[in-house]
Parts: sequence; C-alpha cells; structure tokens
Amino acid sequence: MAQETSTLSISELSDLVVKIFENAGLSGQQASATADVIVAGERDGCKSHGIYRIEGCLRTIAAGKVEPKAKPELTDDGSAILRVDAKGAFSPAAFKLGAPALAERARQLGVASLVINSCTHFSALWPEIETLTDMGLAALAICPSYASVAPYGGKEPLLGTNPIAFGWPRPSKHPYVFDFATSIAARGEIELHRRAGTQIPEDWAVDVDGEPTTDPEKALAGAMMPFGAHKGSAISTMIELLSGVMIGDMTSPEALENLGNTTLSPHHGELIIAFSPEKFAAGRPGNPFVRAEVLFDAILGQGARLPSQRRFAMRDQTMRDGVQLTSDEMQSLQSFLA
Amino acid sequence: MAQETSTLSISELSDLVVKIFENAGLSGQQASATADVIVAGERDGCKSHGIYRIEGCLRTIAAGKVEPKAKPELTDDGSAILRVDAKGAFSPAAFKLGAPALAERARQLGVASLVINSCTHFSALWPEIETLTDMGLAALAICPSYASVAPYGGKEPLLGTNPIAFGWPRPSKHPYVFDFATSIAARGEIELHRRAGTQIPEDWAVDVDGEPTTDPEKALAGAMMPFGAHKGSAISTMIELLSGVMIGDMTSPEALENLGNTTLSPHHGELIIAFSPEKFAAGRPGNPFVRAEVLFDAILGQGARLPSQRRFAMRDQTMRDGVQLTSDEMQSLQSFLA
Repeated sequence: MAQETSTLSISELSDLVVKIFENAGLSGQQASATADVIVAGERDGCKSHGIYRIEGCLRTIAAGKVEPKAKPELTDDGSAILRVDAKGAFSPAAFKLGAPALAERARQLGVASLVINSCTHFSALWPEIETLTDMGLAALAICPSYASVAPYGGKEPLLGTNPIAFGWPRPSKHPYVFDFATSIAARGEIELHRRAGTQIPEDWAVDVDGEPTTDPEKALAGAMMPFGAHKGSAISTMIELLSGVMIGDMTSPEALENLGNTTLSPHHGELIIAFSPEKFAAGRPGNPFVRAEVLFDAILGQGARLPSQRRFAMRDQTMRDGVQLTSDEMQSLQSFLA
Repeated sequence: MAQETSTLSISELSDLVVKIFENAGLSGQQASATADVIVAGERDGCKSHGIYRIEGCLRTIAAGKVEPKAKPELTDDGSAILRVDAKGAFSPAAFKLGAPALAERARQLGVASLVINSCTHFSALWPEIETLTDMGLAALAICPSYASVAPYGGKEPLLGTNPIAFGWPRPSKHPYVFDFATSIAARGEIELHRRAGTQIPEDWAVDVDGEPTTDPEKALAGAMMPFGAHKGSAISTMIELLSGVMIGDMTSPEALENLGNTTLSPHHGELIIAFSPEKFAAGRPGNPFVRAEVLFDAILGQGARLPSQRRFAMRDQTMRDGVQLTSDEMQSLQSFLA
C-alpha cells in the first residue's frame, strides 16, 4: 500500500525548515542559510542531503556542538585567499558571506580561493558550487569529514568520506556539476541502508577486523573503502592535506577525536577554489563556454550521462509541481517543531 | 637467461640523452629540459616514462610536429595566472621557465596558477610537481592527452588518459606525491603489454564494439575505461574543461583530430596550481608541515603505503649505484645517436 504523500511548494518547505531551525535556537542568518541547503537537497531529489539531515543538525545544536547564533566574519588581505571564520556555526552562512568576495577576486586574479574555518559541516557541496557557476565561474570545493575510510591497503578508519565537487557554468543551462564522496559510497547511503534494513554491496566497506562486509551496522563500525582503489585513496589524502592541514583546520581523524563519535555534524573547515574561464581563456582562440558544449554534446552523443542530470530533472519537476513528502516525513517535520 | 646490463651514472645517462636530442635537432635549452624528465623517469624506475619515451619524441621531431628550437615565453599580468607560451616545443622547457615565477606568485597570493599553452606533451607530471614541492609549495597539475578513454556509460574514445598529479612538501624527506592517469591504466602500460605480448586485465578497456577486451591491440583500437567508474569519468571531464577548454588549448579529442593518430606526442596545454601552505595556515593553530606528518604516520602505521614510495626507494638506489640498462636498451640509445 502506497503511503499518503503531501505536496509542498519550495517556499512552503523553506518556511517550515527555517522555522524548525529558529525554534531550535539558530539566528535568522544561520537558520535561513542552513535551510537553503536542506531545501535544495529535497528539491533536487537528494534524499540523503534533504530533510533527512535536519535531525542530525538538531542533535548537534542540542548537544551544544555548534554555535547557533555566531556571525561569520570575512577577512581579506587582498591576496588570492579570502577567509571566513564561521566561528563554530554551520557552514552555509559562512559560504554565503564569502562567495561574492570570492567571485570578485577570481574575476580579478583569474583564480582565487575561499577558506572557511571553524565551521560545523553537514551539507552537500554542490549548492555552493552552483552559487559560483551561477556567477559564471568554474569552481572546485573540498573538505574533510570524519575518519571513516581506510586508506587503500590499510584497514582502520582514518580518512573522511571527503567530498570533492566541481562545477562549470553553462549559459542558459543547468551547469556541469559533480559532487561525490571519495569513499566508494557516501556514509549517508550506508546510513539509509541501515535504516531500511538492507545490505550494502560487498566492496563498500570492511568490518572492524578488516574483512569485507555487507552489513551496514558492521560497515559503520568498521571502515569504508575509498573509490578507485589507490587513486581515490590518494585524492582523499590530498583533501585532508589541502582542506584540513593546509587551512589550519581539523583533519578527519582530528574531527572524530574532537567529538568522539560520528552522530553529530563534524567541526572542520573547507576549501573552495574559483576560476574565471574568461580570464584564463583571454587572448586564446575559441570561446570556452562554446567549446565546453562541444565536449558535453560528445559525452551525451555516445549515450553517456553528465553528472547531476537526474538531480536537475527532479529540480525542474519540483520547481513546477512542488516537493512530495511522505506522511512519515511530514510527521517528522511537525515533531521537530513541537 | 638474464640479459647483460650496463650501469650508467645519472649524469652519464643525462649526457647521452641530451646528445640524442641535440643530434635530433633540439636546441640546447629544449634538449636539456626534455632529457631531465626522461632521466628522472629512468632514475626512479618508471620505465614507462624513461628512455622508452625517447623513440616517440624522435618520431614527433622527425614528423615536424614539434618546434625543436622554440624559446618559451612567459607573460605575467600581475594576476594569479602566469602564462608560458611553449610555441609548439616540448613542455619541460616551458615549465622550467614558468616554475620560479609561479612559486613566487603563490607565496605572494597564497594560490597561483601556471598555464602552459601550445606545448607538445610527452612526460609524467611528477617531475614538475617535485620542482614545486622542493620550493616548499603544494601543487596540483593536470593536462589532457589524446581521446582514448570512453566516458563512463559510453563506448567511444573521447577523454584522454588525463593525468592528475599532486604534491605536498615534506621537509628533509621525499615529498608526498601522486601522479596517475584517470584511465584505469596508463596508455603506456597497455603499450608495454602489447610489446610484451601479454594480456591486459578485463576491466581496463573495451574494443571498438564497446565490449570488454583483454587484448592490448584491441584495447588500443577501442577505448580505455576511466578509473573509479562515474567518479573517475567526472574528474577526467573536469581535466578536459580546466586544462583544455578553459586555458584555450586543445582538448583530448581535438589533440587527436589535430595529429590524426596517437603515435606522436600530443599538442595541447597544461594547468598547474601552486599553493603556499605557509600563507594558508598563517594565523591558524599548528604547523601544517608537522601536522601533515601525523597524517602520513597514521597511513603508514596501519600498513598502507604512500604513493611514490617505490619510486623514491628506486631513486635512492640509482642515485647511489647508477641506472642499470639492458643491452637492448643500450643498443636503442646508441641507435638513436647514429
């Protein structure tokens, strides 16, 4: 028997999520920026980054492990490093503050970076990437998470699921965007399997003894595997170095040690690099935006897909028809307000 | 029966390779920079990027598809983009010219990029990365190659083997460096299997009909597969966009169309991004170089390896004992001089 569903417009859902966060103690600035990311997840059919994340945010707030009303602060020394101190609050408000300055500096210098320090991270990176592609920039974003992935050839959790996201602007089209964990699967996907009581594929993780397992409970207790064997492991290590060590913020093992478990949103930093294709291509033959379309056409033309296609299709649908939530989901949202 | 071997010191091998390139018509500047990369490959036991590459270079020179005496030219508009026009010559001399300016700009701005335009590319990226780590910088290098890899879910060669290399400086130690093709295997590895008459693993490539094949000939005629399924495919596409389209140089399909086949070194560009860990970490707790060692110790401590460990071990050995070449290899080198 199909569950009953409710349909909410994007703005109705947004109002509801903002209210949940404000009730939980977030300032208006924090509640609004944080809700934006969760609503974007739901809007795009990314259930693992939608309202599912609210519970963890609230748990983190209740535990006193995030600053609910901190005002992020931007510092700019005129170099290619813009820095936002999130002051222990969730990351989205810090990104929102830094993004316009990053875009301006990238247009001026060709490439620039935004460092977010001391934030509590819970979100997908693609909403940030799309903010920058909307401004005509290419962008790369990386951050650590919690030690939960063994380096290739190892057996103990050390690396995070360390996402890497990239975007390229496509005038009058949804951008080219990818955003994925450098573990074979995202931790959230294993969580969903655990909740659903289903098995995970056998190459996703090892148990505490280093043996491959299909049991999501054992996987969460053991270590996940990096994607692409030694290559993914190397990329994940690079993410620890650049967006943990280099920016003077916590690595994944440090973030885990800091909170002691993975049930709360981790405290660490993030690194975003923005590129101005116009400045890089200046004086060279061809328009980079036109040339990129030739590449995308060739990918689609042989039956392959562009990343995020499914997400954009869902977005087009929910922007028109609204977001459908199950009665369980609606009940959750109502209970968060209580 | 073991083949007889000759032992050459690094400088003897270097003199020999420089002479080969000068005899073939390269200027002193071009011969020396190009030889450096080949000797580094041989020194580090990277046979697929050692003297094995000379034949292809000579073929490219003989075909008139590389400018043998071009002088690379650096332009600097004061931004975070340094640009070297290689003017159709091999890439190493262009990199050598741009590297000190890149390092200086990265120290000043925190992050800076070096664009190499219009070069003929044949080399590994790690020698470039190590030049920058030697200067205390972290660095990332990417470039297209020839269309030979199908995008994930596709079946026709479109993406190049598109290498990505990264390095992190380790004071008084060999740096943390990885450098790999975004195909499951490097094209050179399939070439070596073809020459040796051995089969390739079945997930490396598809034949012209899109079917998996273990025959290196059929693989080279068909399409290689990206590493890490859709994730590696997305990274490879990013490399086409940033280091082909964005810098106004050829993508992998354009490079293939330009020369018509893959037997000569491809003509395209390269993008290198350098980061100053000192500037990024300034004002934040902890020394980034000390903190990175904690991460490396944790990787090694659970029995995993750091990338390039084998290469550095071989380097330590050949720097002490010289490079051993088989009589076939020595004969090849002599024949190149004739």
